[in-house]
Amino acid sequence: MDNNLLKTLYRDSLSLLTDLYEITMAYAYWKQGLKEREAVFQLFFRKYPFQGGFAICAGAQIALEYIQNFKFSEGDLSYLEGLKLFEPAFLDYLRNLKISLDVDAMEEGTPVFPNEPLLRVKGPIIQAQIMESALLNIVNFQTLIATKSARVVHAAAGDHVVEFGLRRAQGIDGAISASRAAYIGGCHSTSNVMAGKLFGIPVLGTFAHSWVMAFEEEKEAFSTFAKTFPKSTVFLIDTYDTMKGVERAIEVVKELKIEMIGVRLDSGDLKVLSKAVRKKLDQAGLTQAKIMATNELNEERIADLKGHGAPIALWGVGTHLVTAKDQPALDGVYKLCAVQDEKKNWQIRFKISEEMIKTTNPGILQVRRYRDDHGYVADMIYDLEMGPGAAIVSFGEERAIKKGWQSIDLLVPMLRQGKNVYDQPSLAQMRQNTGEELAKFPSSLRKLVKPELFFSGIADNLERYKVDAIERIKRG
Amino acid sequence: MDNNLLKTLYRDSLSLLTDLYEITMAYAYWKQGLKEREAVFQLFFRKYPFQGGFAICAGAQIALEYIQNFKFSEGDLSYLEGLKLFEPAFLDYLRNLKISLDVDAMEEGTPVFPNEPLLRVKGPIIQAQIMESALLNIVNFQTLIATKSARVVHAAAGDHVVEFGLRRAQGIDGAISASRAAYIGGCHSTSNVMAGKLFGIPVLGTFAHSWVMAFEEEKEAFSTFAKTFPKSTVFLIDTYDTMKGVERAIEVVKELKIEMIGVRLDSGDLKVLSKAVRKKLDQAGLTQAKIMATNELNEERIADLKGHGAPIALWGVGTHLVTAKDQPALDGVYKLCAVQDEKKNWQIRFKISEEMIKTTNPGILQVRRYRDDHGYVADMIYDLEMGPGAAIVSFGEERAIKKGWQSIDLLVPMLRQGKNVYDQPSLAQMRQNTGEELAKFPSSLRKLVKPELFFSGIADNLERYKVDAIERIKRG
Repeated sequence: MDNNLLKTLYRDSLSLLTDLYEITMAYAYWKQGLKEREAVFQLFFRKYPFQGGFAICAGAQIALEYIQNFKFSEGDLSYLEGLKLFEPAFLDYLRNLKISLDVDAMEEGTPVFPNEPLLRVKGPIIQAQIMESALLNIVNFQTLIATKSARVVHAAAGDHVVEFGLRRAQGIDGAISASRAAYIGGCHSTSNVMAGKLFGIPVLGTFAHSWVMAFEEEKEAFSTFAKTFPKSTVFLIDTYDTMKGVERAIEVVKELKIEMIGVRLDSGDLKVLSKAVRKKLDQAGLTQAKIMATNELNEERIADLKGHGAPIALWGVGTHLVTAKDQPALDGVYKLCAVQDEKKNWQIRFKISEEMIKTTNPGILQVRRYRDDHGYVADMIYDLEMGPGAAIVSFGEERAIKKGWQSIDLLVPMLRQGKNVYDQPSLAQMRQNTGEELAKFPSSLRKLVKPELFFSGIADNLERYKVDAIERIKRG
Repeated sequence: MDNNLLKTLYRDSLSLLTDLYEITMAYAYWKQGLKEREAVFQLFFRKYPFQGGFAICAGAQIALEYIQNFKFSEGDLSYLEGLKLFEPAFLDYLRNLKISLDVDAMEEGTPVFPNEPLLRVKGPIIQAQIMESALLNIVNFQTLIATKSARVVHAAAGDHVVEFGLRRAQGIDGAISASRAAYIGGCHSTSNVMAGKLFGIPVLGTFAHSWVMAFEEEKEAFSTFAKTFPKSTVFLIDTYDTMKGVERAIEVVKELKIEMIGVRLDSGDLKVLSKAVRKKLDQAGLTQAKIMATNELNEERIADLKGHGAPIALWGVGTHLVTAKDQPALDGVYKLCAVQDEKKNWQIRFKISEEMIKTTNPGILQVRRYRDDHGYVADMIYDLEMGPGAAIVSFGEERAIKKGWQSIDLLVPMLRQGKNVYDQPSLAQMRQNTGEELAKFPSSLRKLVKPELFFSGIADNLERYKVDAIERIKRG
């Protein structure tokens, strides 16, 4: 199932999952005979999400599927015809369009920083342009949630984290995609059974308040459920009164002579209640029973609870994780960076904005990550034609590349002429990458609040080119 | 297409789009011989979204589709089998499950207030329970975005609002569903072509910065596009320098002798720039040309710009609208409210929580909306068995029902025994309802900040029952 999510999930073409202006621009390129002009677009974000120190790149696999599946259906074409904006010959052109793009992208689970391209798309401008909206939709959301998940998992410091945001997620795919990205970011399991089926993510869950309320007595509810699942019941104990709830759960496991897996708290002061409940469990000899907490948790609340010694071992995180509640969108953009002129020479393009942050880096870019014996030390964004620089410039500070540093280039070839050339790792492998790669950075980077920013900048040669070019353009 | 979104969009069953505990509870009911026990669940939210004065109910049509399409596929069942939690006879039971639920729901586009049920589901407990996660997912998100849209449209005070959040939406369906809900809430159009195709929403769009950057000169880019779309070009003028951009756009329309539809501003100080651009356009005699604004807009920014006389006539709203950025989840819940005992008598159930806000209203509820000659005056949540009260109680205040008030009940029958009994209006009709219904409330309700809250409460007879019941439960 893992192999082609979009084909598994969606019945029809998703080629119209795009902004209308992508198609009007395509039409204008076609109409003006510019459709085969080669162009390069790059996808990157501008600001650290969640005011943190990193993002976790995700979504490449789905993005590639989108591109490879791209084909207008007859239904799509007749809808476009009905808009009365395009001539029939253009619709024929779309009907026969064969995608021949080259795509280089970062592997999912790679830590990434602002302005570093996550994805580079090269090919006929009409094809590269028309992918914009969907690629942004997919990569922005996957990267956002993988990042949030890595933060939550970091806060939980080795404890099990289950994602269970389905009911508050933003639509059906808002849930399914969030479960996928949360797993890449490091969550251990999900409550979303469809995500379990589609992606092989471990699924977890026991019972709800409604189960308890369906019975006259809480104890009867507990006992009935535990008889059904004697080996895996986690008792939800706060339907009426948490401390009475834990007593009833203890009675039930004693009476049924089963092992107590754990109890779940879903309301009240988790700090106080978890300690009181732990005490009850320990007094009853149930020292192996675990306490699970849920209820509007996020990385800050988990860190706070752990900091105060709350004896919670399992964390259920929903709304805050799957909607990235404190910042529900990554500000990723997809920018034209080069076009070929009539003589097939590359012309560098970059946007200069009245808002400085919207000014982009020029060039067809690659990201080189340097490490010494202790771990990663710096990232350099460089232009493929100019090659890497001798130093990296970031916010006015310049650092020379040292002898003995090793490096890897983060953007790897994934599509060539529309054909896959990359062996996608399993989702479990991506998840493992996230953890392993994050661990190679200074630990200060992973701090939830006011992290120390990693030294990521642009090559000195590219910086000089950029400064000159801005001067030139400003002079007219 | 409008008829069955889920079947049109999704290839496979969505029956596993649920939390695992819904299925473990189903198994426990089945195992204990309780599966046919009749139960009633109600879906409602607790807090006004966006600290506003109302929400717009949406999602009933998709929710009903979900229920009507509900059928475990063989793939679903073999996945469940692989979990090794359930015996084969239960999977057979699921294979043959026929949905026989009754559903009453509010029509989409109905203004609604906290604690009022948006949806009531009645039937065998196993069926009603298993729908929880998906119904919440669908109704929470649709209602959230329809509400946000109504706020944005209110701020725009009659101007055209186009939703164009696809690239920042939370996944594929996060975009498609958001376009649908935004239209119900009052937006006039979308940039999302797939939403146009699926729902018949008008689509809008012209060109992007990348179009401008693909050419050597901005003017060449403008002229090339305007030749392709002489009747519908809106010039994006801020790629390099907004004031130079508008001059070039004016030159192009003069040279091509076409009508100027409008220009779009996507960065900078929209207050200042829109006035300066308006002046340029007017001086050139292009008084009919409209200014469109985009760039991180939301209801507050639109209201602020309009308050300062910014001459903007078209508003493009993306991220803030489709992710409901300031509150990306509605806190809707789906609570068991009654079960039949062995003698088929209804037993009222409600949850008393240590957190007062989590205490639910008892009963099988209906919402009655009262109006006088000037418009709506009050809502009463009442229990169907007790009937409406003589007065409404809200936060300790009691108001008697007056003679001469007219009323309607908001929950209408939509499914009976799993079969549709309701004629779904078109999406355009739902959108019209939103506007017309909102207009019947006092205008103070629609204020974006510190609105006056509408008098919505529970029937006095139900209030007395609730107080007594809580007392009884607390005593043991």
